[in-house]
Amino acid sequence: MRPFDEDALSAASGFSLAEREAVYHAIMTRRDVRSQFLPDPLPDDVVARLLTAAHHAPSVGFMQPWNFILVKSAEVRTRVQDAFARANEEAALMFEGERRQAYRSLKLEGIVEAPLGICVTCDPTRSGSVVLGRTHNPRMDAYSTVCAIQNLWLAARAEGVGIGWVSIFREGDLKTILGIPSYIEVVAWLCAGFVDRLYDEPELSVKGWRQRLPLEELVFHDGWGRSER
Amino acid sequence: MRPFDEDALSAASGFSLAEREAVYHAIMTRRDVRSQFLPDPLPDDVVARLLTAAHHAPSVGFMQPWNFILVKSAEVRTRVQDAFARANEEAALMFEGERRQAYRSLKLEGIVEAPLGICVTCDPTRSGSVVLGRTHNPRMDAYSTVCAIQNLWLAARAEGVGIGWVSIFREGDLKTILGIPSYIEVVAWLCAGFVDRLYDEPELSVKGWRQRLPLEELVFHDGWGRSER
Repeated sequence: MRPFDEDALSAASGFSLAEREAVYHAIMTRRDVRSQFLPDPLPDDVVARLLTAAHHAPSVGFMQPWNFILVKSAEVRTRVQDAFARANEEAALMFEGERRQAYRSLKLEGIVEAPLGICVTCDPTRSGSVVLGRTHNPRMDAYSTVCAIQNLWLAARAEGVGIGWVSIFREGDLKTILGIPSYIEVVAWLCAGFVDRLYDEPELSVKGWRQRLPLEELVFHDGWGRSER
Repeated sequence: MRPFDEDALSAASGFSLAEREAVYHAIMTRRDVRSQFLPDPLPDDVVARLLTAAHHAPSVGFMQPWNFILVKSAEVRTRVQDAFARANEEAALMFEGERRQAYRSLKLEGIVEAPLGICVTCDPTRSGSVVLGRTHNPRMDAYSTVCAIQNLWLAARAEGVGIGWVSIFREGDLKTILGIPSYIEVVAWLCAGFVDRLYDEPELSVKGWRQRLPLEELVFHDGWGRSER
């Protein structure tokens, strides 16, 4: 190994049991929040820490393809909610019978209630046309952007901030409202605001939409479908 | 709100400063590991905690589309590394001149050195053809799977386990080696093993491939391209 590599390596400082538990606590109690947002604006330093966490996500070829559009404007958020409402009506019609009724009874977003919207985008041109690690999977840039979102989400949990990811939009509507260029991909609209209460389990589970699967049925060994020897 | 909703809500227990710092420490010091894996096998309880963290990721419509193929078999991992080598030679030829030389000098995987490979897949059929939240963005299932990967990665950091995401494969090669059905999407091959040293900064930055971008240039306000008023 070359000397400069050695210099750049440090001891992988261990986590105490308490620190490890804190990481797991964030992971296990993170929720997709739609209704519990408090109206208080998020302080700038909190938002800066959330974005810094996102910016330290892994990215393919270190391309860092993400942008973050912070939307405090109530007028803009109202337009975004209108775009959601249009798409959500289309979505409801895709379900049949009782499932459609159940779908319509769910509250799926807090775009206006949450004091901050964060539109997270992916720029596939960020580091040229040939990107290390993206050569065989063109979706790796969007996947990197999703890693940034998950970092932000877990940091938010530790800050007492709830996050809700809204995905029911026609992408073109968001691009028009926010002036996003056509070559940029919209990955997420995040609703962000302080919360003082959270569901113990995912809201869709609590409300009977769908239940958690047994993990052991999802794990295979040395090949698809193989249980442990 | 209906009573059963109220019952399912708990105080969003705050994080102490120390706990918050632990979450940020995992986020900021997580690395994509290619060369520092120790050969010791990962204990089953550690692997179980990592998979449980992954399984508690957010998923669109709570579909939980992921599977995890744990690959301890050295023979299978050798075949996977062969598949990487073939794709990586194709990848190198996409770069020109000095950049191709630089690309070839990078070590991009630890498939055989790491004692455990984890192939993470996405099953788009997991909860029927119409999925709540996926109606307008068909990629939300893969994005959920990526959230699971990032959860696993951060939990691994807290456990002293290094993770490297290898994306340079022809997807068909991995499917053949692991017997993965054609309708299942391969999202990631993760190399996993204990580490006692990590790079202070992303390895691609240390080795001069590409540097971290200034975060402030990636953040807009109320619309694309707009700096703060």
